Amino acid sequence: MKSILPKAVRDLSAELNRLPGIGPKTARRLAIHLLRQPRSVVARLGDTLKNLHANVKVCRRCYNLSEQEICAICRDTSRDQNQLCLVENPLDVEAIWRTGTYNGIFHVLGGALSPLEGIGPDELTINELMARLEKEEINEIIFALNPTLEGEATTRHISRLVNGKQINITKLGRGLPTGGDIEFADQITIAAAFEGRRQVPTPSSPATGART
Amino acid sequence: MKSILPKAVRDLSAELNRLPGIGPKTARRLAIHLLRQPRSVVARLGDTLKNLHANVKVCRRCYNLSEQEICAICRDTSRDQNQLCLVENPLDVEAIWRTGTYNGIFHVLGGALSPLEGIGPDELTINELMARLEKEEINEIIFALNPTLEGEATTRHISRLVNGKQINITKLGRGLPTGGDIEFADQITIAAAFEGRRQVPTPSSPATGART
Repeated sequence: MKSILPKAVRDLSAELNRLPGIGPKTARRLAIHLLRQPRSVVARLGDTLKNLHANVKVCRRCYNLSEQEICAICRDTSRDQNQLCLVENPLDVEAIWRTGTYNGIFHVLGGALSPLEGIGPDELTINELMARLEKEEINEIIFALNPTLEGEATTRHISRLVNGKQINITKLGRGLPTGGDIEFADQITIAAAFEGRRQVPTPSSPATGART
Repeated sequence: MKSILPKAVRDLSAELNRLPGIGPKTARRLAIHLLRQPRSVVARLGDTLKNLHANVKVCRRCYNLSEQEICAICRDTSRDQNQLCLVENPLDVEAIWRTGTYNGIFHVLGGALSPLEGIGPDELTINELMARLEKEEINEIIFALNPTLEGEATTRHISRLVNGKQINITKLGRGLPTGGDIEFADQITIAAAFEGRRQVPTPSSPATGART
């Protein structure tokens, strides 16, 4: 596109525009915003970016992001080493870890199967997962993949591979998100919420789930 | 916030989070996205940022962004040197320049008056504008400030300062944006569109504006 902006601003805009969710106009606004920041602030961001890859490793055991060869979660021996939560990416580990409700270990697949995007089983750490299952004593795998077509297909693919081993296979519950609005929930979510409905505990009924 | 992500990722997220329009979740996703990019791509973005301020100057005449002491528009002697368009920031120059409909020169204020944000006349290039009006032969100032409270207040403030000089003062027309939807237009825009309505040229009427 024709532009009279200085080349450095156009270059920066073009590079920012390549980031996900940042269109050409946002990219230009960000570039101008950065120009207005003190030189030292922008230089620090530049250094952080330049050092990013050098300062981040991938855990050799669970493929989570890590500062060392083995990540903080894998090094934490107080965690249940027999319960493994399977996730797509490190931000999922972060989100689940932050809740404090799960005390087992993780395995990061690096994405979900997506033939359209050229992501097959070899692009994910599925072989590495199978190798772990041979070596480690895992009693339960909790599939915590995204509730998308790709996530579901990946869950099916891997659960088939794991089938036959003495491992309990579960996946996260589906239903209405807390704070959500039934009015705006999609059909599949509402259907899943009906399917996964629970007994409301009352003084006269035992406090158990509707499905047991 | 508690996090188990590597420090380099947290630092980068925190710095990206400071950019306008980028919340903490988007910042983290961007950081993870960058981690997945080749090291060379991220390093190049880092270098572009580090060199940004060194490669961009501010035009000494019109305060537009420039690669040289005087910007490309001011150096272009084919442009009308008597018509000055007053804008808030360099992206406005870019947007107006790109249309090709305006062939005069610019003056970049650097923002609009906003007492709440601590932006008074001295934070803008108003004194510099007045100095230009003394030195240069300007016949018309076209106020092209944003159609906001701040833009309008700035237009009033500066037009009062300019008043009394032999300079025609105009501002950009207000009304429905092209491609816009009357149904979704706000009241002030619709009122402005009524006020600025034009005669539709027909074979039996002369093709002039309703207000002359």
